[in-house]
Amino acid sequence: MNAAGREILAGNTRAAARLMRDLDDEIPAAIRTLKQLYRHTGRAYILGVTGAPGAGKSTLVNRITTRLRKRGKSVGIVAIDPTSPYSGGAILGDRIRMQEHALDEGVFIKSLATRGHLGGLSRSTIDIVNVMDAMGKEIILIETVGVGQDEVEIVKVAHTNLVLVVPGLGDDIQAIKAGILEIADIFVINKADRDGADKAMREIETMVSMSSFKEGEWKPPVLSAVAATDKGTVELLEAVDRHQEYIYREGNLSRYRREKARVELVEILKTRLIEKAVADLDAHGLLDPLLADMANKRKDPYSISEKVVNHSFAFHFLNGGRKKSIKGKGSPR
Amino acid sequence: MNAAGREILAGNTRAAARLMRDLDDEIPAAIRTLKQLYRHTGRAYILGVTGAPGAGKSTLVNRITTRLRKRGKSVGIVAIDPTSPYSGGAILGDRIRMQEHALDEGVFIKSLATRGHLGGLSRSTIDIVNVMDAMGKEIILIETVGVGQDEVEIVKVAHTNLVLVVPGLGDDIQAIKAGILEIADIFVINKADRDGADKAMREIETMVSMSSFKEGEWKPPVLSAVAATDKGTVELLEAVDRHQEYIYREGNLSRYRREKARVELVEILKTRLIEKAVADLDAHGLLDPLLADMANKRKDPYSISEKVVNHSFAFHFLNGGRKKSIKGKGSPR
Repeated sequence: MNAAGREILAGNTRAAARLMRDLDDEIPAAIRTLKQLYRHTGRAYILGVTGAPGAGKSTLVNRITTRLRKRGKSVGIVAIDPTSPYSGGAILGDRIRMQEHALDEGVFIKSLATRGHLGGLSRSTIDIVNVMDAMGKEIILIETVGVGQDEVEIVKVAHTNLVLVVPGLGDDIQAIKAGILEIADIFVINKADRDGADKAMREIETMVSMSSFKEGEWKPPVLSAVAATDKGTVELLEAVDRHQEYIYREGNLSRYRREKARVELVEILKTRLIEKAVADLDAHGLLDPLLADMANKRKDPYSISEKVVNHSFAFHFLNGGRKKSIKGKGSPR
Repeated sequence: MNAAGREILAGNTRAAARLMRDLDDEIPAAIRTLKQLYRHTGRAYILGVTGAPGAGKSTLVNRITTRLRKRGKSVGIVAIDPTSPYSGGAILGDRIRMQEHALDEGVFIKSLATRGHLGGLSRSTIDIVNVMDAMGKEIILIETVGVGQDEVEIVKVAHTNLVLVVPGLGDDIQAIKAGILEIADIFVINKADRDGADKAMREIETMVSMSSFKEGEWKPPVLSAVAATDKGTVELLEAVDRHQEYIYREGNLSRYRREKARVELVEILKTRLIEKAVADLDAHGLLDPLLADMANKRKDPYSISEKVVNHSFAFHFLNGGRKKSIKGKGSPR
């Protein structure tokens, strides 16, 4: 373990912030540190908070953080926020996140606003959660809109997922996301003092009751809250505790860990593969001619991708050195 | 060209719908048809309509479609909508898209609600736009929330991008997205009869004026509209016409076509690469052991990804057969 890694394992906030910045800049030494830190992860409890813009995620995360701090827990917060205000200026309202906890040493807040072109948001989130985990944060909150594909996939790294719903918004916001249904462990009707809260609760309860659950399987409870006035936060955290008990049961925990590993591997590998493929095509002087051929309709992206993919993988090096590569199958046309 | 392809080139709606369904199911014959159709694409004018949930995208798309139909144009609409209502039921409000145009033969509507686990949304959008283009739709509208990473990337295939902003919503919705700023060709303050419309317009105009534009470069106009009452639609389409003139200028068009090709290749290749990598790892019996090693912290996803990537690409087959492969660099640890 290098010096940076040791500082992070000791909980050094400044070292962790520096590593996150270096990972953003893709500095090789930072990735080496992260590799070494990975084996020290797996201690944090990860809590996903998903909801449409305007659902009150930040407010709820703030309330939860206050309660967790009172329990003496250290907290990490990752806000996946592609809605970054224009550089330096207040465009239609700037916001300062979590002002209440900004000076609390026990709370580490990281907002992810930048996006790479090749899918860096999911990978960055995984990196940051792992750094926070390694530095000893006991609870890590991931706040996300859950609208994009990557955003839904990423919360699968959480032990427990809260899905926020607000009564009385337009159905454009309100329609429950198919992908989010799969991942919800606890539903929260937030802003429950609004008209339509009972209706929203009944509808989600009906929806949950329409799903079939196996004996002993977790059935998502539907709670109500008014995060703005802290109403319902205690009950919410009690539900999280109950889900934690459920997740910590033998079979469930290993299933969760395997799923977390799968998401981590897929997201990291996906980003690396496309970065390398594009860089290599470019280094061979192939990228520009291929794009020109596509623009002129002499080539199509499906055939190009098929050729690249068919000639790409050979995994014997992962297989104890035994040579068992998958041969390129050639192209069907 | 096979029979299915010929039917689609002739504008057959049923054949196009069938191909889209088969592409969803990843039927090989459908991908072969799509490869052949690709060279017949590039005739449609693609219009992106991006805005947060509740911004009034569907309503505006509806209004635009009505106007385009009056001009005698055939229209394709792709709604990227991860907010799919729960199977078959009306959960917190079901919505029927574009009822007005549902029976119009000149309008083809496809809503993309399903999501694959490995990034299928962008790729599906590209596929559908290409099918609509090949079948002869003159204008293709892509409606998207633009919140997720994939969703922002995907609208780069459009010739012209409209970005919708609504005055007076919470800043959670309202903060202009960094990624969307890059892609906006025309800003639309929708629901401009609401309080705060003038303020929103001034702020976006200020923001645009702070950016530097080269001589002759397109400067995004900021328009106002009330899509619900059709106010501003005519002026909006006039702005689209002006942008079309701009884009059709020699250098601009080739730059656009190259960028479209880049997005298509990257998105298609990205999906194919990760699908193939995971399938091959699994076929070699390597996936489960790797995930177990990760769960037990004996291996980390960064090192695994690095090894896979370093041993993956060899592009001589794209390079006129000349052998010039990139050797695996081994792993740094």
